[in-house]
Amino acid sequence: MSSETLKNYPLPELEYYKIYGRTDESQYPLPLFFNGSGIEVNVTGSELWIDVEVDYDVYEPWIFTKLNDAFMSRQMLTKGSHSICLFRGMSPSEVKNMKFFRELQAMDGDKNCRLLVKGFRSDGFFLPVSEKRYKLEFLGDSLTSGEGTYGAVGDNDWLPMYMSFSHDYTSMVADALDADFRIISHGGWGVLCGWDNDPRHNIPSCYEKICGISKGEVFESLGADKPYRFRDWKPDAIIVNLGTNDDAAFKQPPFTVPGTGETFGLRSNPDSSYNENDLELFKQAVIDFLFMLRRNNPDSHIVWAYGMYEYTLTFPITDAMNRYRKMSGDTNVAFLQLQDTPADAMGARSHPGVKMHEQAAKKISEYLRKRLDA
Amino acid sequence: MSSETLKNYPLPELEYYKIYGRTDESQYPLPLFFNGSGIEVNVTGSELWIDVEVDYDVYEPWIFTKLNDAFMSRQMLTKGSHSICLFRGMSPSEVKNMKFFRELQAMDGDKNCRLLVKGFRSDGFFLPVSEKRYKLEFLGDSLTSGEGTYGAVGDNDWLPMYMSFSHDYTSMVADALDADFRIISHGGWGVLCGWDNDPRHNIPSCYEKICGISKGEVFESLGADKPYRFRDWKPDAIIVNLGTNDDAAFKQPPFTVPGTGETFGLRSNPDSSYNENDLELFKQAVIDFLFMLRRNNPDSHIVWAYGMYEYTLTFPITDAMNRYRKMSGDTNVAFLQLQDTPADAMGARSHPGVKMHEQAAKKISEYLRKRLDA
Amino acid sequence: MSSETLKNYPLPELEYYKIYGRTDESQYPLPLFFNGSGIEVNVTGSELWIDVEVDYDVYEPWIFTKLNDAFMSRQMLTKGSHSICLFRGMSPSEVKNMKFFRELQAMDGDKNCRLLVKGFRSDGFFLPVSEKRYKLEFLGDSLTSGEGTYGAVGDNDWLPMYMSFSHDYTSMVADALDADFRIISHGGWGVLCGWDNDPRHNIPSCYEKICGISKGEVFESLGADKPYRFRDWKPDAIIVNLGTNDDAAFKQPPFTVPGTGETFGLRSNPDSSYNENDLELFKQAVIDFLFMLRRNNPDSHIVWAYGMYEYTLTFPITDAMNRYRKMSGDTNVAFLQLQDTPADAMGARSHPGVKMHEQAAKKISEYLRKRLDA
Amino acid sequence: MSSETLKNYPLPELEYYKIYGRTDESQYPLPLFFNGSGIEVNVTGSELWIDVEVDYDVYEPWIFTKLNDAFMSRQMLTKGSHSICLFRGMSPSEVKNMKFFRELQAMDGDKNCRLLVKGFRSDGFFLPVSEKRYKLEFLGDSLTSGEGTYGAVGDNDWLPMYMSFSHDYTSMVADALDADFRIISHGGWGVLCGWDNDPRHNIPSCYEKICGISKGEVFESLGADKPYRFRDWKPDAIIVNLGTNDDAAFKQPPFTVPGTGETFGLRSNPDSSYNENDLELFKQAVIDFLFMLRRNNPDSHIVWAYGMYEYTLTFPITDAMNRYRKMSGDTNVAFLQLQDTPADAMGARSHPGVKMHEQAAKKISEYLRKRLDA
Repeated sequence: MSSETLKNYPLPELEYYKIYGRTDESQYPLPLFFNGSGIEVNVTGSELWIDVEVDYDVYEPWIFTKLNDAFMSRQMLTKGSHSICLFRGMSPSEVKNMKFFRELQAMDGDKNCRLLVKGFRSDGFFLPVSEKRYKLEFLGDSLTSGEGTYGAVGDNDWLPMYMSFSHDYTSMVADALDADFRIISHGGWGVLCGWDNDPRHNIPSCYEKICGISKGEVFESLGADKPYRFRDWKPDAIIVNLGTNDDAAFKQPPFTVPGTGETFGLRSNPDSSYNENDLELFKQAVIDFLFMLRRNNPDSHIVWAYGMYEYTLTFPITDAMNRYRKMSGDTNVAFLQLQDTPADAMGARSHPGVKMHEQAAKKISEYLRKRLDA
Repeated sequence: MSSETLKNYPLPELEYYKIYGRTDESQYPLPLFFNGSGIEVNVTGSELWIDVEVDYDVYEPWIFTKLNDAFMSRQMLTKGSHSICLFRGMSPSEVKNMKFFRELQAMDGDKNCRLLVKGFRSDGFFLPVSEKRYKLEFLGDSLTSGEGTYGAVGDNDWLPMYMSFSHDYTSMVADALDADFRIISHGGWGVLCGWDNDPRHNIPSCYEKICGISKGEVFESLGADKPYRFRDWKPDAIIVNLGTNDDAAFKQPPFTVPGTGETFGLRSNPDSSYNENDLELFKQAVIDFLFMLRRNNPDSHIVWAYGMYEYTLTFPITDAMNRYRKMSGDTNVAFLQLQDTPADAMGARSHPGVKMHEQAAKKISEYLRKRLDA
Repeated sequence: MSSETLKNYPLPELEYYKIYGRTDESQYPLPLFFNGSGIEVNVTGSELWIDVEVDYDVYEPWIFTKLNDAFMSRQMLTKGSHSICLFRGMSPSEVKNMKFFRELQAMDGDKNCRLLVKGFRSDGFFLPVSEKRYKLEFLGDSLTSGEGTYGAVGDNDWLPMYMSFSHDYTSMVADALDADFRIISHGGWGVLCGWDNDPRHNIPSCYEKICGISKGEVFESLGADKPYRFRDWKPDAIIVNLGTNDDAAFKQPPFTVPGTGETFGLRSNPDSSYNENDLELFKQAVIDFLFMLRRNNPDSHIVWAYGMYEYTLTFPITDAMNRYRKMSGDTNVAFLQLQDTPADAMGARSHPGVKMHEQAAKKISEYLRKRLDA
Repeated sequence: MSSETLKNYPLPELEYYKIYGRTDESQYPLPLFFNGSGIEVNVTGSELWIDVEVDYDVYEPWIFTKLNDAFMSRQMLTKGSHSICLFRGMSPSEVKNMKFFRELQAMDGDKNCRLLVKGFRSDGFFLPVSEKRYKLEFLGDSLTSGEGTYGAVGDNDWLPMYMSFSHDYTSMVADALDADFRIISHGGWGVLCGWDNDPRHNIPSCYEKICGISKGEVFESLGADKPYRFRDWKPDAIIVNLGTNDDAAFKQPPFTVPGTGETFGLRSNPDSSYNENDLELFKQAVIDFLFMLRRNNPDSHIVWAYGMYEYTLTFPITDAMNRYRKMSGDTNVAFLQLQDTPADAMGARSHPGVKMHEQAAKKISEYLRKRLDA
């Protein structure tokens, strides 16, 4: 498909490149599990292609590219092996910086949804990729998976094309701070349970694996359930944007786990306030997660950034954080309240639109700049 | 000074007008104690003047006017009796809405700083002033006194001209929500103590008087220390923007109260964290203030809005609020974290510039609109 | 490649769709010659694919898509037949509006650069596409081909990926006015000659053919050099954004036409003013073009919109237009001066960035709204 | 009125100050004839007052002040002698930059409307005022007198308070370019005649006097009708914003000059196009004015900036300018088309609001920066 003169560079034979996102780097081809997972190269030559493999049962991955840090393309990838031309016809002697990112979150609901990078083809030479100034880890739900950041207001299907990394606050924070980053997020998930009270849909349960969200044989073979090696990549800050779906769960009926028949449900009182015992479960989940984060990341600053969609759990979250601080003596944590989304700033799927992600990114990055530079 | 044909309307003889801000309405002339205190009329005629009396030892009051809700003038008032022309030459038959506001906070440091309204002069008729949709009470420090919202970046004198109601978030929130409002604020004051650890400089101690900030014989005679009648004006929401100066006090030496020799000081640890016992004093002050607010305002929604200048006390404030909620069972309170001011958005006196007040106003007014409309 | 259950809809068998851009509608597959050329459908079903054929020697076409009028994807198309999935997994019963646009201008320099639409595949039904409120024709150069609207500041290769319709003022004007549109533009071309004095590179010489820019056997066979049928699509307004390259030519050496050896060159005086005789040639070209436009479009409002990159030819253009008005008695023409691009608002290739296109679009669309609504 | 310790500085005894605006500098007190006329000082000390004299029959002057280049106050001045405190209580040793500006245009309709500066009072020392980078002269009508830049949308009285220099594009251009400036403008006036066809209401007839707009004995005694000494202050650029009222005149009935009975009227044709002979009168007035400007300012760049309120006379103005260029050989002139004001951007009195002045200022200042820096 591409011109004859291009040389093939399977990843194992390529000296210089940078991987974004948690993955099992011993795999070939290389799996890009998460939104914001990707690969960056500096390369000369007139032409650059990337070779990928794609599969899924239901949800196809989308990708986007940046050339010299400018947005260049965004597209759906259908099943099969693809050679994607990233650029062609360029001045051969100039060094180009090319970034290739997965837009789509790791999908819990598709045991086959994968995007693997085999390598590049080019007529140029590859050069070292520079280190970023900071390392950031983002943990979250649909807000961190960029749900609704593409698509028309009023579009309401739950689909990959409406999710993104390119328009999400995470990419904006990373750009603003010149940061490397890793993201673990899934729409509808919480700290304790999912929006529908499904107790399996919580981020903490996935946190210590490479990609605990994606399950099944395929992902096992890709290394997704291997323990994640925290010591290899130590984030300067961990940004947790969770709670919005736990909040939603209080207004939903209980969930019965298929197979086990186990039932779980956060309860509201008749006056629509939340049941105190269930709130305590939620708070305990926050506390437990903070201990887990700290255990694995002794030196990282931890910021709980909450509020892009209702402020309802502000008190329970801060109560849990205050208790965690008291129990642990750990003061290297912070609470940031993001701006709630007014009706006229919604994007697709009744989720915050791009302008709200810009505001969230501004608050987080200004905070981190001050904190991390100090 | 004005034309002969104008009729004099001393306030006691005027049927229709609206007073903004806490005051002793039995006084004549009428004292405008606070920033945002003022008077509104609807009037026909070609010309309108207001008659005021002004005095001070050190700090002169400033005022601003709005004609039909558009900013028209802002000026210093020097000592003496003044007739100020608010408009002239207008189409006589049209009804004009005129608002006259004090820009300057109630001044603790000037026992003579007063602005009194005697009445109006006009060739028109006065008509009823319409009610606003909501009632809001703002309690705060320099951020609520608009310090630095006028003046060049780099100007650092502590002066009335740099303070304002016109560029403060309070006026923006009131406009956005079509709300009547009352403000009690003083630069440098806190919930527990002032920025310099002066334990007298806290807003709670003033809250139950008409104007507890301004002390001395002059203000006594003006009714400032009369108990405030809460039942006459019930706010839909109370916005408390306090804590920033208590935070500052932790980094200052202890304060010795002149006269009594009493010493007070919030302490930092050698590692620059804050002394836990002193933090507890602060938290207790927050809790006590919330009880005081609730006792006097059984039905008002209480929002603690904090963060325009450093987020440092987010955890102590939310801890205190969580404890208050538990102790009282009162859930009609909320915490809003405002946006910290980055270096390039500072106004005069190293205080947040107008753009930051716009952001604060946006967050508060969007929150209140959702909450109060519900 | 796509799922088995999709039905194939070759264009000739499809009842409902809308073509954007000048083309020879008798062709199958259907050529999309210009930037902004494209096809729109309303369709139910869960999945929609478009089948295209692509070829080129040098310059590959790029496309972008809009789903329900929201930007969804942008990508390069390499040589060959492609089935591109436009959406999948959607709620089958809902009607989706899908637009598929060519980003790349008609290329003078590539006798093979073509993008042909064969048809669609879907599991839904196609429905009628609604008419737009207005019809607009845009004639221009690189500014109208969106050159530099993608890509990093500092990127300077002359490449398809840096050109666009999606970020060009033309798409913004069309959106703002709810207008159908046709575009004829080529980077470097002028009214009289190209930026390098090439006398063949002028838009008027192409105007009366379907696509006079693209030459050679391939394009002949695609109908590009057929006479354009003006009576079939009567624009409400014609926006001419030309002159910037004629201006540049005055500062360039003469051009020798390959083959004929003919030489052409607009000259500057020693004081760097422009030679009067050559300015007269330029003015005559403007006048001739206005006559040509009017002959073919008796009722269209003609707007010369100039100035996004230097105002230098403002006087020669207005002089020519004033003379045309006098000669013709035609008053249905206007001159709009767009905003020159300051250094800090440049995009890639030292061309105006997206913000300048937004400003240009604002001026043009506000003007046209007032004019066409009158 | 002010404190005893201040020293009186009548202007004749003051060594350092800068006058803005055309005036007769031999007068004492010093007349501030125009909008943007004013006085600037650099001064130490804690306190500064300005002493002024004010009179009028109908239209009272307004003023605004800037401290260290930040807007500080805006107020009406009523009849009489006033001591206005510009600041007080400041750190005595710091040098403060204070600017005092007239907001109100020179008024044709009030033979008594004057604002005279007598001097300052201060406890500080006056220091030299620095020169600005450029000199600009602005000539115009209500757009240049800031009409409608204050006041509510819908307010329609023709009053001084709705006019300003502080919110006008002229002050924004001057700030952006660090320029000294002089302004001659009057609402309703044109190049040839006023909006109502009054042939006396044209700016050219006033241009060669110090302040030809203001007539009568009072102004004669103030030096207003003395010839203006062009050689003393040579503008780098002259910005002419005229034509909007000549345009309006075409739609108005003829005007009969009181006293002489002379009648004047620009005529429209039945199809609402403009009478060609009358357009020619307008064009001739533009040409004559350009010759007058050039004669008096041999080296100044002349920019005709037109279009903030309808583009209608774009062709007549450019035709006249093209003819002037041909007749004179003068190429040091330019035409800038400003942005027409859409309905939703109007300020008071159906005039462009502040945002439109910002846009106009941006176009003019970006143009001039490029041109004057070259």
